[in-house]
Amino acid sequence: MTARLLVIGGAERHRPGGEAILRRFVDLAGGPQADIVVIATASGEPATLEAEYATLFTRFGARRARGLRINTRSQANDRGVVHALAPATGVFFTGGDQQRITGVLGGTLVDAALQTLVKGGAVVLGGTSAGAAMMSGTMITGGVAPGVARASVRTGPGLEFLPGVVIDMHFAERGRLNRLLSAVALYPHELGVGIDEDTAILADGDRFEVLGTGAVTVVDAGAATDIVVPAEGPIALAGARIHVLPAGSRFELTGRRPAILQKETAA
Amino acid sequence: MTARLLVIGGAERHRPGGEAILRRFVDLAGGPQADIVVIATASGEPATLEAEYATLFTRFGARRARGLRINTRSQANDRGVVHALAPATGVFFTGGDQQRITGVLGGTLVDAALQTLVKGGAVVLGGTSAGAAMMSGTMITGGVAPGVARASVRTGPGLEFLPGVVIDMHFAERGRLNRLLSAVALYPHELGVGIDEDTAILADGDRFEVLGTGAVTVVDAGAATDIVVPAEGPIALAGARIHVLPAGSRFELTGRRPAILQKETAA
Repeated sequence: MTARLLVIGGAERHRPGGEAILRRFVDLAGGPQADIVVIATASGEPATLEAEYATLFTRFGARRARGLRINTRSQANDRGVVHALAPATGVFFTGGDQQRITGVLGGTLVDAALQTLVKGGAVVLGGTSAGAAMMSGTMITGGVAPGVARASVRTGPGLEFLPGVVIDMHFAERGRLNRLLSAVALYPHELGVGIDEDTAILADGDRFEVLGTGAVTVVDAGAATDIVVPAEGPIALAGARIHVLPAGSRFELTGRRPAILQKETAA
Repeated sequence: MTARLLVIGGAERHRPGGEAILRRFVDLAGGPQADIVVIATASGEPATLEAEYATLFTRFGARRARGLRINTRSQANDRGVVHALAPATGVFFTGGDQQRITGVLGGTLVDAALQTLVKGGAVVLGGTSAGAAMMSGTMITGGVAPGVARASVRTGPGLEFLPGVVIDMHFAERGRLNRLLSAVALYPHELGVGIDEDTAILADGDRFEVLGTGAVTVVDAGAATDIVVPAEGPIALAGARIHVLPAGSRFELTGRRPAILQKETAA
């Protein structure tokens, strides 16, 4: 088995594509056999989000869905908490602040257990918004400037469930393409993947597929002929590639190329 | 002589790079010999903008700078107004609503005179914001959706001083990359040129150079391997190219390639 990751761009709970995405998560986790753990470490209101997602996953056919409260590093290093994860077939991370996830879980027993369960294929890992961002190798933590510049993005290491990729979310809705371009200009080894709200990628090994109502924007600075990053002011970036991929599209991560595009209307 | 166009992304009057851009316009128009006409047709307050730019151009060394009021198509077809343009070495279009410019000037005697004066090299043409957008072959007039979609951009013909190009302005500041990607996905023959505020391109024949404090983002769907434009919902666009070009960069329009990049720090 390869790692299966469902990476959602946020705002899927109350939107038309969201139900289909969350139903897909339940199916991937085993449908009527699914045992899903909801982790709301990113959120300041974990009880609300745990209950809301557990209700949705049960309604969508899971055998069991429950919150697992991890608010501190000592909880994340507690063998009882690790034990509670063992029967899970799906683990879902809610939105909030992605640095809470990496700060509370990073390097703990729960982190190690999740890596093993996910990479071995025993667990499908889902996450939305902050819960999506933390899956990156390089995680975007902020950034303020409007253009493509060093100041436009701050990054730190994510939990690396999807290495070689930098994920941004709420992508079209918050106009984040310049932030993602800044990230890949700084780190062209990373492939930039911007996921719209109510939209997801389902990564399975070397490929991902796009689900939902929006699109996924891939920015690839690997092909760039020149990248000049001054300490301040705008970055120069020549010859980068960009792909805009709606639902049904597939993408090969190793070759950095779209594999199948949706064919609704040929232009 | 070839047509010389100074195309400004807006908000240059009160910003650090703006003085240098407007001084460059005066120099291009002949410096101490410059005779500059300011046309504020796009604006609902033409008198204010005419006076403001005329004062700036005179302060920056022009021999003469004056407003030329063209609010109606009958004024734009008036031989007296055309006559007033004849001695000009520079013509500058202010911001406002670009559809006012194309609606009032399109196909008139003033339009014809400007085409002749600019293409013959007798006049350098400057414009900011709406006055920049109208120089496009295909002019962006609006668009509301956040993603890359048919609904994200509305276009109409510009005055075609720079054919084969679709210009967007206030580019980074208003997060307009998805709008410009939508335009070039719909019309891949057009090269998308997004100009930040306080930033300009100086086009001279087949090349342009970037000036100012921001960057110019070029999106090129010519290399795209697949473009799928559904009636509604997100566009699929695979293999487009993107270039982010700060001040000092040059770009070849015919070959669609950056010619020289700023070399401040090699990454």
